[in-house]
Amino acid sequence: MGQLSTPIRAGAGRRIYDLLRAQIADGTLPAGARAPSTRALAADLAVSRTTVTAAYEQLAAEGFLVTSAGRAARVASPPAAAARPAAAAAGRAKPAPRLSAFGRRVAGTDMPAFAPTPAARIDFLYGAVATRDFPAQAWRRAYQAELLRHQPSLSYAPPQGDAALRLALQGYLRRARGLACDAEQIVVVHGSQQGIDLCARLLLDPGDAFVFEDPGYPMARRCFEATGARALAVAVDAQGLVTARLPRQQRARLAYVTPSHQFPLGGVLPIGRRMELLQWARRQQAWIVEDDYDGEFRYGQRPIDALQAIDSDGRVVYMGTFSKALSPQMRLGYLVLPAELVPVFRQAKRLADRHAPLLEQRVLAALIEGGAYERHVRRLRRENERRRTALLEAIARHLPGDAHVAGTAAGLHVVLWLPSLRQRDEPTLVAAARARGLGVYPVSPLYARAGAGARPAGLVLGYASLAVEQMAPGMRVLASVLATATA
Amino acid sequence: MGQLSTPIRAGAGRRIYDLLRAQIADGTLPAGARAPSTRALAADLAVSRTTVTAAYEQLAAEGFLVTSAGRAARVASPPAAAARPAAAAAGRAKPAPRLSAFGRRVAGTDMPAFAPTPAARIDFLYGAVATRDFPAQAWRRAYQAELLRHQPSLSYAPPQGDAALRLALQGYLRRARGLACDAEQIVVVHGSQQGIDLCARLLLDPGDAFVFEDPGYPMARRCFEATGARALAVAVDAQGLVTARLPRQQRARLAYVTPSHQFPLGGVLPIGRRMELLQWARRQQAWIVEDDYDGEFRYGQRPIDALQAIDSDGRVVYMGTFSKALSPQMRLGYLVLPAELVPVFRQAKRLADRHAPLLEQRVLAALIEGGAYERHVRRLRRENERRRTALLEAIARHLPGDAHVAGTAAGLHVVLWLPSLRQRDEPTLVAAARARGLGVYPVSPLYARAGAGARPAGLVLGYASLAVEQMAPGMRVLASVLATATA
Repeated sequence: MGQLSTPIRAGAGRRIYDLLRAQIADGTLPAGARAPSTRALAADLAVSRTTVTAAYEQLAAEGFLVTSAGRAARVASPPAAAARPAAAAAGRAKPAPRLSAFGRRVAGTDMPAFAPTPAARIDFLYGAVATRDFPAQAWRRAYQAELLRHQPSLSYAPPQGDAALRLALQGYLRRARGLACDAEQIVVVHGSQQGIDLCARLLLDPGDAFVFEDPGYPMARRCFEATGARALAVAVDAQGLVTARLPRQQRARLAYVTPSHQFPLGGVLPIGRRMELLQWARRQQAWIVEDDYDGEFRYGQRPIDALQAIDSDGRVVYMGTFSKALSPQMRLGYLVLPAELVPVFRQAKRLADRHAPLLEQRVLAALIEGGAYERHVRRLRRENERRRTALLEAIARHLPGDAHVAGTAAGLHVVLWLPSLRQRDEPTLVAAARARGLGVYPVSPLYARAGAGARPAGLVLGYASLAVEQMAPGMRVLASVLATATA
Repeated sequence: MGQLSTPIRAGAGRRIYDLLRAQIADGTLPAGARAPSTRALAADLAVSRTTVTAAYEQLAAEGFLVTSAGRAARVASPPAAAARPAAAAAGRAKPAPRLSAFGRRVAGTDMPAFAPTPAARIDFLYGAVATRDFPAQAWRRAYQAELLRHQPSLSYAPPQGDAALRLALQGYLRRARGLACDAEQIVVVHGSQQGIDLCARLLLDPGDAFVFEDPGYPMARRCFEATGARALAVAVDAQGLVTARLPRQQRARLAYVTPSHQFPLGGVLPIGRRMELLQWARRQQAWIVEDDYDGEFRYGQRPIDALQAIDSDGRVVYMGTFSKALSPQMRLGYLVLPAELVPVFRQAKRLADRHAPLLEQRVLAALIEGGAYERHVRRLRRENERRRTALLEAIARHLPGDAHVAGTAAGLHVVLWLPSLRQRDEPTLVAAARARGLGVYPVSPLYARAGAGARPAGLVLGYASLAVEQMAPGMRVLASVLATATA
């Protein structure tokens, strides 16, 4: 690591690079610490801010810093140096890694630690589902049958996914989501995250703008931003995206939305706003990515048809997933595409990874065709409604009277607002809860500007992996932690 | 589809667009036909070549044409119009799809039809493996055990892959490939194709050059080219890549190589050339992607250690797959990365699709740990050696004396050269064989310039999915087709 590639091969940039590397190595700047602001450091060292920025970009590309537009750079956790092999660490002269522009953006993407520690005894982790909810018996039977089914040989399968699964999905989407599509419009993907990534790659160029719900789903925002596009944050209220605030002057190329159940605030987008969103997309010639991530879970409410079902203009990419009804570890989802996007998405899927695993696709097809999948979803909906009711009761019973929840009509999580605390108290509250074995998650990181506005503290509580009996103990611990925090 | 987005909203470009659309629609230009050259059409219509090119790009973006750098545009097969829904076809005014630059390149990527028809009775399809070779019993037992294993909840798994699988792979790679790596350097991917795609995205920018074996693996070339990078073709001889021909003046950012068993010609790169390749990469500050796609299958020959095993400079990304030893339908492979690339590849994998399916990873880990995987590979190697021997005997017995094969020391395919035919006779030969139920595949499309040079006709014969008893009948049919073709 002695030599550096351009643009900071020598001079002031190199000295800044070496300085920060040394401070990270000796712990002066520990993991998670804020690096000096580029403005301040440039002034201190009497060099141009561009020089400092280039050094920071190099450090980010190498994994020493994590940077994110508009925020202070922080020391990566764990520092990249920890992963360096003995040979390189021993000082062999070697240029810094040369990454693509995309690679540098990815390296600089700020993502939460993969698994917070210590493990929580009662974990309201959003996205997790209960192991006992998985239909293991039905899955195993169907899997064995498919494993024994004769194929002349094992060769690559079609990129768009297995024909039987796409046909089964077509019927399911018509029955469950009011969505009339052709099986040819469906492309099976490796979970919704791949659906988002394919949309990002095929529909956005560096410098493009995309509309993003504020607050919204961070893994989608990061994926779109990694293409070099920039987010236009549009506010969300109790009904979902505030379509009156959609950009009129600025041109956006894509809007990512969660109309069935806004993530995280839980609004269900009314038909008037749906029409307004579609009209906006037509005027802007923009694509809409409709992430129906938990559309199966609606309680005491008539389902609203998918946005794509009322799109007469072929602008909506609909995205569904099996992560909530089966398992997020399975990595299976699907896109329903406007017909004219079908060829390029198939081609991109083939180049990206050829196709989704075939055996699992056929097992799913068999379960949907035979009706077992929909019976399972109905059972699971009742189970999750029980969990939701128990959680809401526990909140009402154990937390202060000003605590209130949003987004309870659908889905597998709620947002709990705590007006007795300020937004900046969230990290302390979350850490104190975790020290007591309770996993809760702050809402602020889901906002475009984490520190902006005058919001109270808020928590995202995912309840799909917990037992009904865990809700009250969980809220009792939270109430106790909260009492200490506000004392 | 009445209106068009810029740059061909009106005028000459629009007329050219409409003309070609109409000719494709009415069959004047059938699927697969060459479109007029942009030069000729510009001259005929007295417009600038830029205008014609813009219209062609639009047609390619919409899926009507397939274009490829330096080749004539062809009508897509099937034409995109076939996939258009009734509503759009009915003439609703609607702009053409707006794709990213990457999307337009993907739409314009020329790929072979997914599954040639009619299905062959004896199919030498490269990449297919025999259904009966899959260790279904061992797999099913391990799968059931994993399905029943308790997890506190089902939540997202680490992007780099399951820890147990990475540890098992570390041991396997040391025993089988002489590769000493740390489990932390391994990232489990969705088949080698995703490994290639991640390298393309993270290591190449538009306009960069990459070294590519000529002939080489087309799915890798297309993936690298889709980033906007350009291939520098380097010739291959019986020993693999001719390292003396590596570019010295031009700067390349990456080299994609198959040193264990060159695809398709089968050379095993000698140690001298390996060292030369590594020295070249160091001088150029280039990355090397080492695709060890069939490294398990070597016959009567001492295994050569992986290139990464002798790389002291941290420049080699090693890529392995389970497609050959288990099934290409499973979509599981892995990268062994230079330590400093680990953080960015993990981050990119998380953004691309979160992680590989967890259950299948744990089944694989259990099979490797328990020794069942390596016993299976040994059995499979003997089985494929029998297939290879039977194929070589059948070629010697039934084909003319001048027919000869290359690349037989390793792998699951051979290249059969037929000096009695010219290269341009390949498509006719392949079609005639298929009409008789025999699947064989031309070698020319694997060359950088399909029509260049004075090569005889050649066929790629993959034998891993066939029974020993099918080799002689297959070669008898080929001999008969060949006799007709050369009559």
